[in-house]
Amino acid sequence: MKIGSQVHRSTAISTSNETTILVRGRDLTRDLIGCIGFTEHFWLLLTGTLPTDAQRRILDATLVAIAEHGLVPSVQTARMTLAAAPEALQGAVAAGILGCGSVVLGSSEAAGQFFAAIAARTETGETAAQAARTVVLEYRADGRSIPGYGHPLHKGFDPRAQRLFDVAKEVACVGSHIEIARQVELLLPDLLGKPLALNVSGAIPAVLLDAGYPPGALKGVPLLARTAGLIAHLLEEQSRPIGFVMSHAAAAAIDYDGDAPPDFQPSDE
Amino acid sequence: MKIGSQVHRSTAISTSNETTILVRGRDLTRDLIGCIGFTEHFWLLLTGTLPTDAQRRILDATLVAIAEHGLVPSVQTARMTLAAAPEALQGAVAAGILGCGSVVLGSSEAAGQFFAAIAARTETGETAAQAARTVVLEYRADGRSIPGYGHPLHKGFDPRAQRLFDVAKEVACVGSHIEIARQVELLLPDLLGKPLALNVSGAIPAVLLDAGYPPGALKGVPLLARTAGLIAHLLEEQSRPIGFVMSHAAAAAIDYDGDAPPDFQPSDE
Amino acid sequence: MKIGSQVHRSTAISTSNETTILVRGRDLTRDLIGCIGFTEHFWLLLTGTLPTDAQRRILDATLVAIAEHGLVPSVQTARMTLAAAPEALQGAVAAGILGCGSVVLGSSEAAGQFFAAIAARTETGETAAQAARTVVLEYRADGRSIPGYGHPLHKGFDPRAQRLFDVAKEVACVGSHIEIARQVELLLPDLLGKPLALNVSGAIPAVLLDAGYPPGALKGVPLLARTAGLIAHLLEEQSRPIGFVMSHAAAAAIDYDGDAPPDFQPSDE
Amino acid sequence: MKIGSQVHRSTAISTSNETTILVRGRDLTRDLIGCIGFTEHFWLLLTGTLPTDAQRRILDATLVAIAEHGLVPSVQTARMTLAAAPEALQGAVAAGILGCGSVVLGSSEAAGQFFAAIAARTETGETAAQAARTVVLEYRADGRSIPGYGHPLHKGFDPRAQRLFDVAKEVACVGSHIEIARQVELLLPDLLGKPLALNVSGAIPAVLLDAGYPPGALKGVPLLARTAGLIAHLLEEQSRPIGFVMSHAAAAAIDYDGDAPPDFQPSDE
Repeated sequence: MKIGSQVHRSTAISTSNETTILVRGRDLTRDLIGCIGFTEHFWLLLTGTLPTDAQRRILDATLVAIAEHGLVPSVQTARMTLAAAPEALQGAVAAGILGCGSVVLGSSEAAGQFFAAIAARTETGETAAQAARTVVLEYRADGRSIPGYGHPLHKGFDPRAQRLFDVAKEVACVGSHIEIARQVELLLPDLLGKPLALNVSGAIPAVLLDAGYPPGALKGVPLLARTAGLIAHLLEEQSRPIGFVMSHAAAAAIDYDGDAPPDFQPSDE
Repeated sequence: MKIGSQVHRSTAISTSNETTILVRGRDLTRDLIGCIGFTEHFWLLLTGTLPTDAQRRILDATLVAIAEHGLVPSVQTARMTLAAAPEALQGAVAAGILGCGSVVLGSSEAAGQFFAAIAARTETGETAAQAARTVVLEYRADGRSIPGYGHPLHKGFDPRAQRLFDVAKEVACVGSHIEIARQVELLLPDLLGKPLALNVSGAIPAVLLDAGYPPGALKGVPLLARTAGLIAHLLEEQSRPIGFVMSHAAAAAIDYDGDAPPDFQPSDE
Repeated sequence: MKIGSQVHRSTAISTSNETTILVRGRDLTRDLIGCIGFTEHFWLLLTGTLPTDAQRRILDATLVAIAEHGLVPSVQTARMTLAAAPEALQGAVAAGILGCGSVVLGSSEAAGQFFAAIAARTETGETAAQAARTVVLEYRADGRSIPGYGHPLHKGFDPRAQRLFDVAKEVACVGSHIEIARQVELLLPDLLGKPLALNVSGAIPAVLLDAGYPPGALKGVPLLARTAGLIAHLLEEQSRPIGFVMSHAAAAAIDYDGDAPPDFQPSDE
Repeated sequence: MKIGSQVHRSTAISTSNETTILVRGRDLTRDLIGCIGFTEHFWLLLTGTLPTDAQRRILDATLVAIAEHGLVPSVQTARMTLAAAPEALQGAVAAGILGCGSVVLGSSEAAGQFFAAIAARTETGETAAQAARTVVLEYRADGRSIPGYGHPLHKGFDPRAQRLFDVAKEVACVGSHIEIARQVELLLPDLLGKPLALNVSGAIPAVLLDAGYPPGALKGVPLLARTAGLIAHLLEEQSRPIGFVMSHAAAAAIDYDGDAPPDFQPSDE
């Protein structure tokens, strides 16, 4: 059946015939394989043009920053899934990726929209501080948390965030979104009654948007980066399995508080 | 409950405290972000050491080669899934990744195992040609297809395969697996009764294994590369949706041949 | 690291020891297997109590209504995924389930929230018609479509919706949500300027909420039901494969409109 | 591009027009919704015919038996995924389903193939005991474990397995597969040097195959059943979240044994 509008019928990303594969209008074999790196290729796939050196360095920096942070939920689910289903590496990667949601990892996208909302107000004459104050208060009035600030472990300071801003400075690519991200950090102690440091998921959209990265693909950066981390963990899981060990520890941390016969003894395993 | 062995209880990939994140023993903020590219970081995550320039170039070449090939099944499933569930980009990427299986995309891993089986025989004194002949005949006796050869579109010649071998030559990284891959291509017309050209999924493991890439992570290359392509397609889907258009065309291509009342007229939509 | 609140540490669904498995406080082996049907078990798992006969019949009716509707996007993605990755049936089912989103199939949940918003207003004294009018206009003011109404194929009338209401009447389980769903259908021609028939995704939450089904699990009904349909299609795909046929037709329906060299001829395959 | 054979172009499961939806040749609205239960519908979807009462009771019993077993890996991954991505219930269900693999849950399918291999030998004149001995020894010679026997918690006896056999007896549906499953259990102490009790994943295919359930859909039973259990856990997770608590406990159970600077102190969080 026909669901939704049936108007658009084209793609501009790739086509091919028996001898040639075109990617974004370029001959994949002749012009891309062996000529450009994977990070440049990702930018080309997204935008249709090759990145400048500054753009490529910033995209690399964000991908490196977010690829790996130890045994976080997405890694645990991937390793448990491979332990249960070793026949399908793709299933374990997919299970891990499904944990890149609005609460964990996906906040890069929400933070990008938050900065963009502030940036839109500055274009009508408000200062960054005024605009930031207005938008933060709107978020709070709606009961929403401020995306891109605060971290369960790196409470005072997320070292990755500052480093990303330093890289942006090194390649002379500091613009309004980085400025806004800093303004918000300065305002939060006053507006929320406590300091909240910019975290890596806030710094990533700030530097990417200043570099001209497409806003609709912000979530793609943690998704692609984390896929690399997941594959490394799944390689380790093959030779040093911990999936079921983690699962056992996770189950042991939770009690059962439902009904039970008076004489029932739960297993201590 | 305790499933499986509960012996191994360590990971060597990453750890952190409030101020420092260690990845493969290196300070992520000080030594990696802004210092190395994403491809180098992927190699580091997998192996614990940074790649040589030759290794990095070969890994880049394989990732660029396999990231994108138009509206293949994995891309279609990802775009249809985003059209149906736009709230979860991660779900659309996961759906696409699930199509990297043993028949499509995952044959890199199978081809790597095939080449490794031949390589193992050459280490006991057989020539590459002898060993290749033996292993090909074993595969045929078991009714298995030869992984890494033949392509539905690029029938005579997969241009990406030759280009990957050229890159390996440029960086002086041609070894026994590339030699074996070529030997097999020469033998197939005789052994199968028809020529089958080496395809990109055969060339990828050949060049990677000669470069020292870990065999257990071969499937990670198409998985990571295709994730980049999927994200580009999902960015396009947001502004130029074709997910439901493709779904309608797919449904229209299939007839219903089950029971039906004599007067039933199926919808032509 | 500790993400989020770490307070709740219990589950009330199941526990076990070496000889006994308790599910919702009952002995699985003695009291459930062979004693109750799967639909009753699903209700028990969700709520902790067995359904009445009326509740069971309504839940059965909704599951039967939504399990299967031909080659819809979720079925296509599942069948394409199995064709590409036959080693992992679970991956094909997962890919299909990922298409149960806010646009397709998941609208049962959105419709349930819509009816609940209207029901909440009637409890403060408004008539169902007044409350429905107010909430519909709020949705339109926010640019949201009205969930549970309209269907791309069953335009004038979704036969499944009426049948579900008839079942509710048969088991004497018609309450305020069904009444609201009907009121909205009557109001829509006036409020939207065109008629929109209640569809199956609107009727499902109406009958379930009147039966006392938990609102937070509304999306579970299309998810569970569609899983049954997906498994049937994947069984058929094993013996009569159409995954790649659908993929070919889907790709052929889309043009390439990106850059290309002047002499480039795309493959007609 | 055209991948694979393009011959089969039909489906026999469902079709529809504007007023009628046919499922397996029956009018969904008139003949199925409200008339049959979900378990009967699942059998109809798979086979094209309605089950007998005995078949329906056996399918119900297997679905009830395998739907829920506490905080197993698939449940943990689903709950962690919902905690990280609450916007997509379908993603959390999909992540859980991906853990229904060859090691966990999916062994129903492997056990079914194992019993079928033994059954095939009995049809050529061997006794069940002879055939079972031969096939067990073949599995051991190939280094494969015997699917459907042994359980990490229910070591001496899986109570669900016996109950399923009792149900089969009650409905007079005991055939060669149940007999084979019992023969294997008797032989294992001698052949393996230790007893291994038939587990639920061994009993499920035995009773289903004796009831005429399609062998290619054996894995569908744990997949469908577990989906019900996952939805119940995800409903509980919404009001009593434990996803991040389990994740924290899982991470705390694993040490880091990679390189680190001499003065590095890992966080005890």
